[in-house]
Amino acid sequence: MIGALEDKVFKDIFFINDIKSMAVIGPSERRNFFFLRNHQENFKGDLYAVHPSIKKIPGFDDGTEGKIYQSVKDIPNEIDFVFIAVPRSEILKVIDDCVQKGVKLATVFTAEFSDAGTDEGKQLERELIEHANNKLRILGPNGMGLYYPKLGITWRTKFPVESGNIGFIAQSGGICNIAIYTAKEYGINFSKVFSFGNGADLDFVDLLYFLGNDPETDLILCYLEGINKNRAKDLKKILESIQKPIVILKGGKSNKGKIAAKTHTASISGNNRIWASLFEQYNLIEVESLEQLLNIARIIDFYGIHNIENIAVFSISGGYGVVLVDMIENKGMNVPDFSPEIQENLKKEFFVNGTSPKNPLDVAAQLTFSDSVKKIIDIALKDKKIDALIMDFPSWYFSYKFFINPDPNYEKNVIDALNLGKLHKKPLFPIIQPTSTPEEQIRISRILATKKVPVFKDPLELIPLLPKISEYLKKKRRREKN
Amino acid sequence: MIGALEDKVFKDIFFINDIKSMAVIGPSERRNFFFLRNHQENFKGDLYAVHPSIKKIPGFDDGTEGKIYQSVKDIPNEIDFVFIAVPRSEILKVIDDCVQKGVKLATVFTAEFSDAGTDEGKQLERELIEHANNKLRILGPNGMGLYYPKLGITWRTKFPVESGNIGFIAQSGGICNIAIYTAKEYGINFSKVFSFGNGADLDFVDLLYFLGNDPETDLILCYLEGINKNRAKDLKKILESIQKPIVILKGGKSNKGKIAAKTHTASISGNNRIWASLFEQYNLIEVESLEQLLNIARIIDFYGIHNIENIAVFSISGGYGVVLVDMIENKGMNVPDFSPEIQENLKKEFFVNGTSPKNPLDVAAQLTFSDSVKKIIDIALKDKKIDALIMDFPSWYFSYKFFINPDPNYEKNVIDALNLGKLHKKPLFPIIQPTSTPEEQIRISRILATKKVPVFKDPLELIPLLPKISEYLKKKRRREKN
Repeated sequence: MIGALEDKVFKDIFFINDIKSMAVIGPSERRNFFFLRNHQENFKGDLYAVHPSIKKIPGFDDGTEGKIYQSVKDIPNEIDFVFIAVPRSEILKVIDDCVQKGVKLATVFTAEFSDAGTDEGKQLERELIEHANNKLRILGPNGMGLYYPKLGITWRTKFPVESGNIGFIAQSGGICNIAIYTAKEYGINFSKVFSFGNGADLDFVDLLYFLGNDPETDLILCYLEGINKNRAKDLKKILESIQKPIVILKGGKSNKGKIAAKTHTASISGNNRIWASLFEQYNLIEVESLEQLLNIARIIDFYGIHNIENIAVFSISGGYGVVLVDMIENKGMNVPDFSPEIQENLKKEFFVNGTSPKNPLDVAAQLTFSDSVKKIIDIALKDKKIDALIMDFPSWYFSYKFFINPDPNYEKNVIDALNLGKLHKKPLFPIIQPTSTPEEQIRISRILATKKVPVFKDPLELIPLLPKISEYLKKKRRREKN
Repeated sequence: MIGALEDKVFKDIFFINDIKSMAVIGPSERRNFFFLRNHQENFKGDLYAVHPSIKKIPGFDDGTEGKIYQSVKDIPNEIDFVFIAVPRSEILKVIDDCVQKGVKLATVFTAEFSDAGTDEGKQLERELIEHANNKLRILGPNGMGLYYPKLGITWRTKFPVESGNIGFIAQSGGICNIAIYTAKEYGINFSKVFSFGNGADLDFVDLLYFLGNDPETDLILCYLEGINKNRAKDLKKILESIQKPIVILKGGKSNKGKIAAKTHTASISGNNRIWASLFEQYNLIEVESLEQLLNIARIIDFYGIHNIENIAVFSISGGYGVVLVDMIENKGMNVPDFSPEIQENLKKEFFVNGTSPKNPLDVAAQLTFSDSVKKIIDIALKDKKIDALIMDFPSWYFSYKFFINPDPNYEKNVIDALNLGKLHKKPLFPIIQPTSTPEEQIRISRILATKKVPVFKDPLELIPLLPKISEYLKKKRRREKN
C-alpha cells in the first residue's frame, strides 16, 4: 500500500472488496425498474429496493419478501452500497438517510449538477458532498458508479460476470458501457470499472490510488477529461508509487474538445503541455481512442509486456506482406532476415510456386495446407532475434465452402498454429480480414479469445500500439536501473 | 481519349469491353479445375478448356459437348481471352498457339519468372514477351489477370457479379482477392480489376491509361510496388490527362519493404522522394493500407467528393463525443457551434437529463427514442455551415433483447435517420461499435450498404481519410482556376 491514507490525502474505499449488501434507491417503474433488474441479474449479496410508494415489483418482491422499503433507513440489515437514481429534488434527503443508515458507498446516477453548467447545479453538488459528510463516499453525480463483476455489481443488462485483473476508471458512463461489452467479446475481464461522472467526491485521483493498491488489479485503464487543479500534487504522489502499467485516453485535448468536456462533466481539461509532461515523466501509455485503449489492454492481458523490435511477418499475399512491412518499419520496428539456420529450415517447408520463405513470409496458396502453416510459424518463432509474429489471413479460409477439397482438420490445425506464440513466449498477432465472411471472422476471433490470442481486423488497429508497449517497458527498465 | 495511342506509347486493350469468348488453358485436375469452375460460375460468353490429355470435366463437359480441346488452336470459334495456368516449361508453346489463334489477351497465372530472382526466370520472361510479339497482350506472369464482373470474368469462387464504376490496378493477386470480397460486403462494385503480377507486358502505366479512358470507370484505385524507370515519362503523361480521382497504396516505401517488393514481383520500388513529389504534383490521394484504400473508395462512391471542414458530431456518450472531437480537430477539421436558429431548434428536441444539444450532440438515453434521433440529425444537417455528420452508436441498440420496452419501429426509424445525409446532400458517417453484438453490427451495416451509407467500426478507420478527400478537391479546384 502506498501509505498515504494516514495523511488523509486519499479516501479509503478498500471496503469495496467486501460489499455484501446493496439497495437501488429510486427504481423507475416507467423504465421497468431498469437498474434494479440489472443488479438483480447478478448481485451475490442481499439486494433491496427503496421507493416511497411502490410495494410490489414483479419478479423481485410480490409484497411479502421484505425487499422493498420506503427509506433505506427502514431496511433491517446493514447496507454497504446504494445505487441512487432519484429525482434531483430528493437527492439531499436520500443522502441524509444513507448517512444515518451507515451506508459506505453511493453511486449517484442522477444528473444536472455541476454538469448542467448552472450556479444552482454547482451549489446542489456542493450540498450533496456536505450532506455525505465524509461518511458516505460518492461516485458521481452524473455517473454509473461501480461495475464489479466478482460481486455481481452490474449496472447494465448482460454485463459479463467474469472477473479479471484490469481496472478501468472513466469519466463517462457511455464509454464504460462500450468498454465492458467490448471486453466481453475480446475475452478480457475487468476487476472493477468506475464511472465517476462529475467526480464530486471520489475523483480520478482517489480511484487511481485505490486501483493502484487493489490486489485484484494489475493493469489500469483510464478515460480522463480533467482533474481538479488542487489535486495535481496528489496525482503525482500516486503516479510516483504505482508500479502497475497505466494506459490513458485523455479527452479534451483539442480546443473544442475542452469545451465539450466541460459540458459533459464540468471538467477542466487543462493544458496539453502539462499533461504531456506528466505522461512522459510517469511513463504512462497514452492512446488516441477507446478502441486503442481496449486493444492495448488485450495485448498486455494476453501476452504481458514485451519489447517488440524485430517482427516476423507471415502473409497470405506478397503485396499485403509488403504493406505490413512498410507499416512496421514506419513505426520504428524491423522485419529482419531470419538467421541462416532458421532460413534453411523454412526453405524446406515451402513447396508451392509463387511463395517466399524469407521474412516477410509469403505463403500464398500454401495457406491451404494447415500442417505447413503450423510448421512455418513454429520455425519462424524459434529464431532468437524474432520478438513477435504478425500474420494476415482472410476469414474465408475458415469457411469450408471456399475449399474444393475441404480438410476436416484445417480449422483445428490453424487454431493450434495461432496458439504457438504462447509456446514460444512471443506475441503472435493474427489479423483476420473480415472480407465477405465476417461471421467467420467473429467465430474464429471468439475461439481464439478463449485461448487468449487477440485477433485484429485491420493492421492499423494493431501496429501503432506495439511501440507504445515497448517504449513503456524500456523506460521502466531504465528507471529500475537508476 | 488521351490520344496517345497513335504514337504507340500505350498498348491498346480497349477490346476488353467486348470479350465474347475465353478459354482456361491448363485447368488442374488435382485442384478440381479451380480456375475453370470459377469462370464457369459467371462467364457470359463461350467458355472452353484446353488440356493436352483430359477429355471430360464433370459438370463442364462429359466428353460430348465440344468444350475441351488439346490446343487453343483446335477450338472452332474465335477466342478473345485466355487464362493460362500451365507449368512453366510449357508456357512458350502455349503462347505461340495463342498468337497463331489470334487470341487478344492472356492472363499468365504461372509464376517463377522474373519474380524468382534468377537469370533463368528473367530470360524466360523476356522470351514470353518476344513470343507474344505485340499481338497477344499479357497480364502477368505471376498474376491473376482480369476480374470483369459485367462479363462474368471471375477468377475466384463467389466473386460478386455486380458491376460498378471503380477500377482497381494491383500488383498483387492476394490484395485483389481481399479487395473484391471486401467490396462485396461494403456494397461497392468494380468495373474492372487488374492483377498484373510482374507486369512484363501490360504494366501499371498501360492499365492506368486504359482505366483513365474506360467509360465504365469513374474512380481508380491502385496498389503499386514500382514501375520500370523507362516508363516514368509515360506515367506523367497519363497522370496529366486523367480527370478521374486516383487513390494509391504504394508498397515498398520502407527499406525492408523495398526488398520484399523485389521478391514479390521483381519490382524496383524507387525513391520515396520521387514518388512523394509525383503524388503531390498530380494530386493523387495516398493511403497507408488496403483497408484505407477500400474505405476511401466507399466514401467517394457513396457520397461523391466533398470538402469536409465543419462536422456535426452526434454521440451516444459525452465522453466518446469528446474523443471524436479531439480526433477531428487533430486532423485539421472543426466541430463548430451550430448557428443560433439551429441551436434553438435542437434545444427543443432534447428532453432527457444528462444530454446536450450543442455540437458535439450528446444524446445519451435519448438514443432509445428513434423519432427524436431522426429529428435531431435532420436539424443538425440543415445548418448551412455543417459539411458532414459523424455519429457513434453501439450495435446493441439494434438488438431488441437490450430494450425493456422494444419499439417495433426503432430499426426502421434509425435506418431512415442514417439515410438523411442523402436528403441533405451531406455525408453522414455512422460509426457502429461492434461491442458484444457484432452480428448486429454486420446486419445493420449490410442494410445500410444497400442504401449506400458507409458504416465504420472504429473512428480511426474514418476520420484520417476525410482530409485526404478534401485536400484532393481543394487542389483540383485550384488547378481548374489556373
